[in-house]
Amino acid sequence: MVEYSDARLNDLFRALADPTRRAMLQDLAAGPRTVGELAAPHAISLAGASKHIQVLEQAGLLDRQVQGRVHTCRLEAAPLHEGVEWLRHYERFWTTRLDALDALLRAADAPAKPARARKRTPSAKTRTKR
Amino acid sequence: MVEYSDARLNDLFRALADPTRRAMLQDLAAGPRTVGELAAPHAISLAGASKHIQVLEQAGLLDRQVQGRVHTCRLEAAPLHEGVEWLRHYERFWTTRLDALDALLRAADAPAKPARARKRTPSAKTRTKR
Repeated sequence: MVEYSDARLNDLFRALADPTRRAMLQDLAAGPRTVGELAAPHAISLAGASKHIQVLEQAGLLDRQVQGRVHTCRLEAAPLHEGVEWLRHYERFWTTRLDALDALLRAADAPAKPARARKRTPSAKTRTKR
Repeated sequence: MVEYSDARLNDLFRALADPTRRAMLQDLAAGPRTVGELAAPHAISLAGASKHIQVLEQAGLLDRQVQGRVHTCRLEAAPLHEGVEWLRHYERFWTTRLDALDALLRAADAPAKPARARKRTPSAKTRTKR
């Protein structure tokens, strides 16, 4: 298993654990936004929005450029990639669940087709493939 | 974009934002564990371990079965799948970054090999593969 820094993953998942911050990421995915634009859809003050933005910055998810009084924020997606890579190590567990469901459905189907039900190779193949 | 319940994603990412809980998930990926077994690798009390386990349960990541005084915990991976699906919507941003890097490297390489630099098909192929 690739080892990502614990601190980076802590910051990433903490940043994603809030619906306002996830909505801000979704907005940033459409293009750069000022702090005011990021705050606008939410019932929060500019100071409240700034706190969320700082959490996103801390997680490396947001790059802020300051020109005079305008702070322009851009999405930085690399930490999200690390999150996906971490989660993917558990992929076999949900695909195993799907295999089990598949096997159940085949078994339920078996009485109608006894000849095919005896032949267990296809389900074994399915299992090793995933 | 598939809409997952905000509450579920909050619970999932909150559960993943702690290194002890991520380590517990990694242990559970190897097989069922008792609460004592989950606590053992960490410098925490059983009560401390129980709190982490409750957070994992709340996120739907852990199923606990009680037989007498033994609580056996099992991994439930489905919420992790939802997390991956949510994160994948941002995949185009990190692949775009890699493509840009690829283009830069090719451009830097171009003056030395003008004949190959003109042939743009390989870079287009690379882009569609990702």
